[in-house]
Amino acid sequence: MFEKYDLTKTIDDATFENSVNPLKERLSILQRTLRDLRIPTIIVIEGWNASGITMSTREIIHSLDPRGFTLHAIDKATDEERAHPFMWRFWVKTPSKGRIALFARSWYSRALAEKLSSIGWKKSLKDEINSINIFERQLSDSGAIIIKSFLHISKDEQKVRLLERERNPLTAWLVTPRIWDFHHNYDTYLPIIDEFIEKTDTEYAPWQIIEATDRKYAISKIYSNLVKTLEKRVAFEADERSKKGRQKNISKPPKNPVHRRSSAGSAYSKEDCQNILNNLQIEMLEINYILFKRKIPFIIVYEGWDAAGKGGNITRLARYFNPLGYDVVPVAAPNDYEKEHHYLWRFIRHYPKAGHFAIYDRSWYGRVLVERVEGYCSEPEWQRAYQEINEMEQDYVESSGGGIVKFWLEIDKDEQLKRFNQREKDPLKQYKITEEDWRNREKWDLYDAAVDEMLARTNTRYAPWIVIESNNKWYARVKALKEVIRGTEKLL
Amino acid sequence: MFEKYDLTKTIDDATFENSVNPLKERLSILQRTLRDLRIPTIIVIEGWNASGITMSTREIIHSLDPRGFTLHAIDKATDEERAHPFMWRFWVKTPSKGRIALFARSWYSRALAEKLSSIGWKKSLKDEINSINIFERQLSDSGAIIIKSFLHISKDEQKVRLLERERNPLTAWLVTPRIWDFHHNYDTYLPIIDEFIEKTDTEYAPWQIIEATDRKYAISKIYSNLVKTLEKRVAFEADERSKKGRQKNISKPPKNPVHRRSSAGSAYSKEDCQNILNNLQIEMLEINYILFKRKIPFIIVYEGWDAAGKGGNITRLARYFNPLGYDVVPVAAPNDYEKEHHYLWRFIRHYPKAGHFAIYDRSWYGRVLVERVEGYCSEPEWQRAYQEINEMEQDYVESSGGGIVKFWLEIDKDEQLKRFNQREKDPLKQYKITEEDWRNREKWDLYDAAVDEMLARTNTRYAPWIVIESNNKWYARVKALKEVIRGTEKLL
Repeated sequence: MFEKYDLTKTIDDATFENSVNPLKERLSILQRTLRDLRIPTIIVIEGWNASGITMSTREIIHSLDPRGFTLHAIDKATDEERAHPFMWRFWVKTPSKGRIALFARSWYSRALAEKLSSIGWKKSLKDEINSINIFERQLSDSGAIIIKSFLHISKDEQKVRLLERERNPLTAWLVTPRIWDFHHNYDTYLPIIDEFIEKTDTEYAPWQIIEATDRKYAISKIYSNLVKTLEKRVAFEADERSKKGRQKNISKPPKNPVHRRSSAGSAYSKEDCQNILNNLQIEMLEINYILFKRKIPFIIVYEGWDAAGKGGNITRLARYFNPLGYDVVPVAAPNDYEKEHHYLWRFIRHYPKAGHFAIYDRSWYGRVLVERVEGYCSEPEWQRAYQEINEMEQDYVESSGGGIVKFWLEIDKDEQLKRFNQREKDPLKQYKITEEDWRNREKWDLYDAAVDEMLARTNTRYAPWIVIESNNKWYARVKALKEVIRGTEKLL
Repeated sequence: MFEKYDLTKTIDDATFENSVNPLKERLSILQRTLRDLRIPTIIVIEGWNASGITMSTREIIHSLDPRGFTLHAIDKATDEERAHPFMWRFWVKTPSKGRIALFARSWYSRALAEKLSSIGWKKSLKDEINSINIFERQLSDSGAIIIKSFLHISKDEQKVRLLERERNPLTAWLVTPRIWDFHHNYDTYLPIIDEFIEKTDTEYAPWQIIEATDRKYAISKIYSNLVKTLEKRVAFEADERSKKGRQKNISKPPKNPVHRRSSAGSAYSKEDCQNILNNLQIEMLEINYILFKRKIPFIIVYEGWDAAGKGGNITRLARYFNPLGYDVVPVAAPNDYEKEHHYLWRFIRHYPKAGHFAIYDRSWYGRVLVERVEGYCSEPEWQRAYQEINEMEQDYVESSGGGIVKFWLEIDKDEQLKRFNQREKDPLKQYKITEEDWRNREKWDLYDAAVDEMLARTNTRYAPWIVIESNNKWYARVKALKEVIRGTEKLL
């Protein structure tokens, strides 16, 4: 892509003033419009070292109300970030509705910096491109605007600027040996970056190459691109909203039906269960230790019918883990803070750290269960979710080196009724049963169909569904632990 | 405190089973009661190395529903944590209403580990004790329960356990040279820890020393203490609530009246303002650079009348900072997630990192302004807030090495009316004026009194209030920048 850009372009002062000032004003008005339309906006400024990223960022910021944007200057990962999958630190920084997130350098620079120096970088950069495109597409599909600029300068120009910085005592410390090293390899990196940009130049998150030799020319082009893109999107958005709900072409993953049973061949007594669990305990402890030492994370998802015994199952399972090595993530309806973000954001935030377990008590599958059945999201939204969830899980497994198992706790309708009635009679258990549970039960068939479709469309090699036959709760507890052992052993 | 404890105490198996099992059940029921009463609970397990902290934590966890607690195993600070004041990492981990936070080691171990090895540790430990007591009292005053156990073993017992761990390949890696070093200095540390515990053994957060030579004895004492304390507090809480709102003896800081003017002696034109600001720019850039290099953080608080020009003032001020070195924290009414925490929690979360600025657009002073006037909190709550805020600011300044300036933007009532009317007429500014603004204006006198009291009671040496005369907005912008320069220069 770089070839066709003329790096000698300049702009004279008068043209600059005349063109940029009105653009600044339009940008400032656009910020308010984006806020009113509750559109989250991501602006990425990338480029060569010394190409003017800081200067351009500062320029854009001048036209914005500082209360409505957050600037993320992306540098080396913190140790917390390093303990999570690569894209995690960017997911958690995605803007809430109506806010602007400005990235001075981004996942692009970090992917290059972290992957280029390792063996097999070609493969890992390809994986990164895939992860990035999924990330940007999912955000865009949920209504976010993504605008990316790459500041392009020649090797010679870069050299002049680096030398200049070295001479200035205020900036000399910025010019590290690593930066010179990158400079000397400019010609090696050029085609790599070129390809990287080309493969991430998508309809939903296009790149704009900015000829950055002339500072004013660069600024004027960044502004005009920003304003043009935002105005187009704002007009489009207003139009879409008047049409009520957009229908995108949604690709649903193929069906791969999962058979559900509520009772297994064998039922256990409390004592059977205790004996088997005790025998498994040591095995689990060892696995836990190895996962911790090797820094492998593991996710366990619990979904199931009301009263299927999720709580009891989780409590028992958790006892076999190192208490310092797991978190239970209880999932309820999203609060207003969470609603301001992409629906996957609140789950990704709680990804386990390297070497830890996360047990999700209900999960992102709410999108295709309760949100679908109760109409809390639109049909295109939940239809799209199957693929989005598969992508998220695959990306998680591949970029963290960890694993996922997903449990569906199955009981039959009669067993549920029996348990509801028991709960109502027991003063210690009454708190567990609410009006809502009875209402959900009336929609059993709707949920049943949603569960079938969910299992079939999201039962993947990297994140399989396991049906836990839960009419007998002792059997269910043993099976859950066994399946965790099976799932984790595969990683060792 | 240690002297009076008999480390040879043991318990036989039968007594243990008979006493502990019912306690476990009571604890499990208490967890639900705490949730229903929406009481946040903090359980701290501290002790000597190898005294059984992990084992005890694991024990307690077994009786709890994992969906309602979070375990925090406190170890060395992450780099993000190190970039904040010492107590910050614990503040952000305080539990929301109805949840339990279990700390396996805590601020106590970290204070010892981080302070004991430095010169002047006596002084810094004393400071830490003060910070900790304030932290625990503020949480307790807001309704949290804090229960702290210290597992006590003798030096000989510790040696036996460490050697045992070294022999086991699964635990040998836990016994680091640092731990042996601590062991050899047991007798040196004993009186220091003793004093530390004594001085933090408060009515609102008492310590329980646990004789931990016999594992079962220790567990049984931890359980009985937990259950006893929680049951007492639950009963007390139920009682208090029936009495509707508690009246504690509140110590209000003395008054130190601050004179407010809406116009300064001089008014500036836009051009005057631009010229002065340009001259100050270089000075500000240099200060910014030095603060960054020395890792000194700085907080700027904006409060003021509606239409006093906070937004414009902040936007202009922010232009003089390195864009990568500041954050604007816009403060609105707390969302439901924030409401689940202590009222200071959401502000402390956004403390600036070392070397950064944070500009709070409105702040914790909402407690004694809008929340007081509109009755969003009770009178005892806002009365208590003056002292709590002073403590928080003092602790911030002392433990971060940074600074705070607080701006009150003053305009007179006529000027506000003029600006409201202007805003209503200007289509570009209409969004800035709402019904609520008019309603607030009607309560001018109530707010006026609240502002007076706020300024007088929280105008401290370490975090002074500066009145910005804002009838002339150019003057106000110049003054704000000058005061930031003055406030930061003091730190250099």
